Amino acid sequence: MDVADLYGKNGGQEYLSTGFQATNIGLAIGLIERMKKDNATIFLSFTANMVASGLRGVFAQMCRRKFIDVVITTGGSLDHDIIRTKMDYEVGDFFMDDAALHKKGVNRLGNVLIRNECYEYLEKKVQPVFERLYNDEVVTSPSSLARALGESVSDKGSFLYWCSKNKIPVFSPGITDSAIGLQTYFFKQRHPDFGIDVTKDMKLLADISLNAERAGGIVLGGGISKHHAIGVNLLRGGLDYAVYVTTSSPWDGSLSGARTNEAVSWGKIAEKARHVTVDCDATIAFPLMMRKFLGD
Amino acid sequence: MDVADLYGKNGGQEYLSTGFQATNIGLAIGLIERMKKDNATIFLSFTANMVASGLRGVFAQMCRRKFIDVVITTGGSLDHDIIRTKMDYEVGDFFMDDAALHKKGVNRLGNVLIRNECYEYLEKKVQPVFERLYNDEVVTSPSSLARALGESVSDKGSFLYWCSKNKIPVFSPGITDSAIGLQTYFFKQRHPDFGIDVTKDMKLLADISLNAERAGGIVLGGGISKHHAIGVNLLRGGLDYAVYVTTSSPWDGSLSGARTNEAVSWGKIAEKARHVTVDCDATIAFPLMMRKFLGD
Amino acid sequence: MDVADLYGKNGGQEYLSTGFQATNIGLAIGLIERMKKDNATIFLSFTANMVASGLRGVFAQMCRRKFIDVVITTGGSLDHDIIRTKMDYEVGDFFMDDAALHKKGVNRLGNVLIRNECYEYLEKKVQPVFERLYNDEVVTSPSSLARALGESVSDKGSFLYWCSKNKIPVFSPGITDSAIGLQTYFFKQRHPDFGIDVTKDMKLLADISLNAERAGGIVLGGGISKHHAIGVNLLRGGLDYAVYVTTSSPWDGSLSGARTNEAVSWGKIAEKARHVTVDCDATIAFPLMMRKFLGD
Amino acid sequence: MDVADLYGKNGGQEYLSTGFQATNIGLAIGLIERMKKDNATIFLSFTANMVASGLRGVFAQMCRRKFIDVVITTGGSLDHDIIRTKMDYEVGDFFMDDAALHKKGVNRLGNVLIRNECYEYLEKKVQPVFERLYNDEVVTSPSSLARALGESVSDKGSFLYWCSKNKIPVFSPGITDSAIGLQTYFFKQRHPDFGIDVTKDMKLLADISLNAERAGGIVLGGGISKHHAIGVNLLRGGLDYAVYVTTSSPWDGSLSGARTNEAVSWGKIAEKARHVTVDCDATIAFPLMMRKFLGD
Repeated sequence: MDVADLYGKNGGQEYLSTGFQATNIGLAIGLIERMKKDNATIFLSFTANMVASGLRGVFAQMCRRKFIDVVITTGGSLDHDIIRTKMDYEVGDFFMDDAALHKKGVNRLGNVLIRNECYEYLEKKVQPVFERLYNDEVVTSPSSLARALGESVSDKGSFLYWCSKNKIPVFSPGITDSAIGLQTYFFKQRHPDFGIDVTKDMKLLADISLNAERAGGIVLGGGISKHHAIGVNLLRGGLDYAVYVTTSSPWDGSLSGARTNEAVSWGKIAEKARHVTVDCDATIAFPLMMRKFLGD
Repeated sequence: MDVADLYGKNGGQEYLSTGFQATNIGLAIGLIERMKKDNATIFLSFTANMVASGLRGVFAQMCRRKFIDVVITTGGSLDHDIIRTKMDYEVGDFFMDDAALHKKGVNRLGNVLIRNECYEYLEKKVQPVFERLYNDEVVTSPSSLARALGESVSDKGSFLYWCSKNKIPVFSPGITDSAIGLQTYFFKQRHPDFGIDVTKDMKLLADISLNAERAGGIVLGGGISKHHAIGVNLLRGGLDYAVYVTTSSPWDGSLSGARTNEAVSWGKIAEKARHVTVDCDATIAFPLMMRKFLGD
Repeated sequence: MDVADLYGKNGGQEYLSTGFQATNIGLAIGLIERMKKDNATIFLSFTANMVASGLRGVFAQMCRRKFIDVVITTGGSLDHDIIRTKMDYEVGDFFMDDAALHKKGVNRLGNVLIRNECYEYLEKKVQPVFERLYNDEVVTSPSSLARALGESVSDKGSFLYWCSKNKIPVFSPGITDSAIGLQTYFFKQRHPDFGIDVTKDMKLLADISLNAERAGGIVLGGGISKHHAIGVNLLRGGLDYAVYVTTSSPWDGSLSGARTNEAVSWGKIAEKARHVTVDCDATIAFPLMMRKFLGD
Repeated sequence: MDVADLYGKNGGQEYLSTGFQATNIGLAIGLIERMKKDNATIFLSFTANMVASGLRGVFAQMCRRKFIDVVITTGGSLDHDIIRTKMDYEVGDFFMDDAALHKKGVNRLGNVLIRNECYEYLEKKVQPVFERLYNDEVVTSPSSLARALGESVSDKGSFLYWCSKNKIPVFSPGITDSAIGLQTYFFKQRHPDFGIDVTKDMKLLADISLNAERAGGIVLGGGISKHHAIGVNLLRGGLDYAVYVTTSSPWDGSLSGARTNEAVSWGKIAEKARHVTVDCDATIAFPLMMRKFLGD
């Protein structure tokens, strides 16, 4: 039970016997391997902050290789993914002077720094996409908007680009809570009948769950994306495999901190499913989990 | 700096000098007092699990007394609020056997237990509300749905009841991620043109922020509700007062764990604002914070 | 299940039905009540930071009333208790400039501020106590040192004062890790044979556990004090009642984050014991738990 | 800022630009590299649970290579290190039935399982070591006991073995709070004058700090070991480099959750020091940090 090779070799076998969360990383690697061997339909969910981090590249690779079948995420993920096709974020630290940053037009997201120009770029980029969508269909859906955004970019580091290219649907049930959402507010000032009907995506997503012979969930972080990924799988009797990565605590009854076992009571994860919750920041845990599958 | 009277008297003054999070409870009480004295427009946001707890009664009292002006919450909050107008939840514990619970038709939310019949009741209750809304307007909005739900009940312990009665708008930008959202999927099988356009609420919410002379936020928990409450206030130059209550950690860059100061860099909380983050389960912290205002 | 009276009445009954950690506060109150009714020997453990907060006053009251039978704590608790017989700590905040504080001779403990003079006072106060002890017995024990410290002060807000007066033993197995410990280093420069034999307290503590008909633990925070309080009770087949208050997470296998149930596997808490873990900052949770017993 | 090679190459450079805690892993690697280049005297502290995990092997390698100069840890670390020279621990999970485990004589430490026989082995192993020490010196010190324990084993996976061989002192200021501590209680029944004087180690440890031209701290987890590692360096004006790895939260003022910057106010880390706090389970973070130095 010693970390003989410091996690460098053996495809993660050494994690299993390390104990504590290293063991859970090893279990997660094994579960993802099983999902793939089993040809499970894989639902990947993540939060916006992760797309502002280096994980964006991991997500893009996964979508490029069609490693996953469905993406469920927040509006902020779309913001960051589009912005970063053109603009760079910088790394700062967690203890900066936020009033001073605000004066300089820098927005802090943990220890990641985002200049105001990034959002100006987003505005320029997104309004024509809205125009095109609006011309097609006055009232659109989150998945249509995500696809149109993906089609509007050519950055191979973008997950939206690969999702559009590979026809991987991207669901974003809370899409207006984002910079893109704020842009819809401005767009509607010119086109008051423009809309985003979130119920349009329900059947699309439900059908994927219902048609899956086996279903797996890779759920990074919490919030609406986490719940949506597991909630829809209630319809089919629960996920057959589930991996959560979270830093939240279950003791306040929050969905974000809930372990996989709680979802078993709801039927969102099947009673017989294999599942594990990794308690770790995804920027550390997820590359370790995916290394075996995406290579160095 | 001793807890002489164990928080029983003095309207919370003794918290301030206690240190650690007790001090932050004291600061939060002071800030809420300032919001009220200043006639600030108050945005209250909370997560669904809280409505499954005893906090539902606190929220209902706040809405009854028009203590707050805007509610921002998730679809799950609407689920629990409506269900509990009729059905009781039970208290269990955090370590129950989830497969056994599932077999018995009991869903676990932390240490709160919800029988399947609760959701059957919700279905019966909600479908007629959809019918009525649909007859009025084929494509509705989250706030209209929330109002219609509030109008459909008469339980004085319901925050939706009081919001409808007192014309307090309830925003729920991620509304389809809920049991009510799942009901829209069933409803659309009969009425495919029914929809919920989430952009409809943008102007409504933005106008409240833009028209507020002073704005305060009471933000319980994280997720989409938290961000929506602070995000819209970007339009007016940020909240003037902000109180967060969270158990999440900021170290992974998550919005849920972000302290109030991070929002200052974004202009979602004003540079000159007074703000505090209380790190505590809201079921403990929030009644202590509201006791001075709502009485015993 | 609504918080009808916001925790003001009924001795905490309303907590039980609130859900999440409020329920656990209610369970903890019930358990402490049972410990007392059952005449259990009560082991109270806490960490040093709590003695730097308003909880010091709660501990002092508990010792004054002989509510508990044994105190187990760290050397830092002795530091703060003695210093605060004379000097005041101030409340700051968690985000101060620590280099600037250091330049001003201010030490930060979370959001509590302690001036360097406090430690100068401690030095003056403690060296004569060492002299006296040394004259009695060249090699002393932590509990003897704690008693001598308590005898040297007359502040009714001091838990050491009341422990000495009421013959409540104070155990501090890691006593040299503290400012007082650093003072022993200076004292030994003059008296190289002076010593603190930590094994001397083992039998004293073990006998209390072995002679207890029923044993209860109130364990605030983690670390050595937590483990020592439960570890010794292995000798008698485990605690009959245990209440933990912690903010740490169990997922890294740390003792500090371990829930009460983990201790059952070790026999440190009895299989049939009643026990609960409250996940909350003790500055908030503990006064709520003790209010019923100590009054307003 | 994408995780191009999933942390497989470049000695950790890719962490720095990833954001959130991955960045902090990168900063920690850089700091440890600086400590070594600068010939700093390195203080390594860790908690007992880590020695029950695969990290024991990492610690052993570090001590074998004299990568560090001082070890500060708890009594439980000595327990686990000695037991594991002979006995294996197993991996279970965090949600096992603790009463059932107790009936089977299995002790749970997070998701690590330790049979009662392990402690029976420890008893047999430790009593003769006490005899030998007692014959040398009636009242011993924690560091002498640790050295004698290291001399009594020949397992190359043991950190105590390598510390004894390489004359790396092991300090354990709270040594009696452990199974070995409990054994002193039994030993004293036969030899009442046997003792462990914890003040004996003060000068030994202080001299190392005072004589260091540069001092670095690698502080894993919290509790007494963490504080002791930084506390002694107050004497020399603070550590020049400090890396913390913790999962605890700073918001309750606990030492375990305190970030490195808090120690700057105390002078335990120098104002000009370079320091970083990695918020992660050490079983995941620490092998990643050490891989560059210890190789695969």
